Amino acid sequence: MANAKAKKVFNELIASCDTFLFDCDGVLWQGYNAIPGAAAVVNFLKKSGKQVIFVTNNSTKSRDKYVAKLSSLGFPSERKNTFGTAYTSAKYLKDIAKINGKVYVIGNEGIGEELDNLGIEHLGIGPDDTSTSQDYDDIKRCELQENVEAVLVGFDGHISFSKLIKAGSYLRDPNCIFVATNDDSRVPLGDSDHIVPGTGAMVKSVCIVAGREPDVWCGKPGKLMFECIQKSHDIDPDQTVMVGDNMKTDIVFGKQNGLKTLLVGTGVATEETIKAILQNSDPALKEQTPDYVLPSLGDWADFCS
Amino acid sequence: MANAKAKKVFNELIASCDTFLFDCDGVLWQGYNAIPGAAAVVNFLKKSGKQVIFVTNNSTKSRDKYVAKLSSLGFPSERKNTFGTAYTSAKYLKDIAKINGKVYVIGNEGIGEELDNLGIEHLGIGPDDTSTSQDYDDIKRCELQENVEAVLVGFDGHISFSKLIKAGSYLRDPNCIFVATNDDSRVPLGDSDHIVPGTGAMVKSVCIVAGREPDVWCGKPGKLMFECIQKSHDIDPDQTVMVGDNMKTDIVFGKQNGLKTLLVGTGVATEETIKAILQNSDPALKEQTPDYVLPSLGDWADFCS
Repeated sequence: MANAKAKKVFNELIASCDTFLFDCDGVLWQGYNAIPGAAAVVNFLKKSGKQVIFVTNNSTKSRDKYVAKLSSLGFPSERKNTFGTAYTSAKYLKDIAKINGKVYVIGNEGIGEELDNLGIEHLGIGPDDTSTSQDYDDIKRCELQENVEAVLVGFDGHISFSKLIKAGSYLRDPNCIFVATNDDSRVPLGDSDHIVPGTGAMVKSVCIVAGREPDVWCGKPGKLMFECIQKSHDIDPDQTVMVGDNMKTDIVFGKQNGLKTLLVGTGVATEETIKAILQNSDPALKEQTPDYVLPSLGDWADFCS
Repeated sequence: MANAKAKKVFNELIASCDTFLFDCDGVLWQGYNAIPGAAAVVNFLKKSGKQVIFVTNNSTKSRDKYVAKLSSLGFPSERKNTFGTAYTSAKYLKDIAKINGKVYVIGNEGIGEELDNLGIEHLGIGPDDTSTSQDYDDIKRCELQENVEAVLVGFDGHISFSKLIKAGSYLRDPNCIFVATNDDSRVPLGDSDHIVPGTGAMVKSVCIVAGREPDVWCGKPGKLMFECIQKSHDIDPDQTVMVGDNMKTDIVFGKQNGLKTLLVGTGVATEETIKAILQNSDPALKEQTPDYVLPSLGDWADFCS
């Protein structure tokens, strides 16, 4: 019965779409482990001549590193078909904001690589001095550099008090641009005990300290990500489906850009969430309600041999 | 002229109030430095027979340590007249929530001392393992203890990724109580370059990770702080003034509890803020609009000899 439903969705999307956009965390893998069957599905679509593009809000890896992770988990990819927020943030700063000065980064090496690729000077990546705690003299000694034109906040496993001081202090200048990669609350890990904080938690604390909201979001559901993909790919929204695990990012992104949307239950949204959505007719949730649902992308594997 | 206005406010409050509640950071001192003249004013009020109570949202110190700081900066005080959120949080957990298990704390030694004073077992204070970054295996090894009945979030200069993982993971249990000390965005330091993140930034990131709002706020403008003061002090709201530097905490606290309110411009609110308030008739701001304003508490020193 479930199988028949999955088959119906599969057939409809294969018939109506020439392009498949895949979110990664919680769709293709959980942590270091590929979702069983997902690779067979993605590779079948490619073999069938579908355009497959990976679109992740994850800011921890450059395009090159994402290609390597995709490949190692069974999803061979190329740089040009791989979009992450480390890349889109760097593109925004270079092509749209056209900054000449430095960028203060709360984030990690993935962002650093993409900024380096575009020749943008940056500071802040890696652990900061964690001895700066509530001692006021320490705080006043916390070094603030000149010529910082933007603060870019992404996922940072080294988030600390001194990083919040610096981000807040740079953003005191209203001309300093506040760029955020994405607003995901949690990273889906497929683990029952631990909650893993997402970039949204880091961005929000900077917002509170700075008393400002980001000037631009470089991930889904923001416009910038789609514009970035469109610059190098021929996308007909009518023939494109966004496959994701997060209603607030993936599904809203798909809807806002006129794409079909498919929600899977292996990440942020669980099978329970999916059931609840289907039973809920709250109009406020309409923007987050997918056209199609599927417990796991791997459920299609049987149709892909 | 300014002096005449200050004198008028002083005379009115001296005549109408028998109790003065003073916020501390940004009212009595900035960082390690007393506001010039503030001690003369506070000590004059005490000598004149006024009941003087210190009411701070700062969670970094126990009552005893606050008494020591007050005294060292020229404001001799006693434990019973000194209320901070480390104390009110511990009181809430003991007397109202009546917890028997452990409390996971994002906060520092001040909170630890007050929990110890009431015999409440706690964990989390001090730097956590900062090597837990985005490595999924590290995250899964992040130790979660049994029997944690509450998560208490206050100011923590050692805020880190592993602390956010733990807070979020404990709060996954809907029976685990989420207690926050206060929601202040910044600590007023009287320094022009550095922004100092307040507890609000730390609480908000836990909210995002946990997907929950705090069950209780233990500082101003919440009810709990006033109830705590009333339990040990005879307070007639009509004859009491709340003196603070923060409209959203101090002034709202005063208004909600029927007190007179006086805003000073030496902390979160600046003299510019005060001017703007007086010119603004937005009804949404009414709750934050003080009855009286004064550039600095020290402006009264001349009337206190």
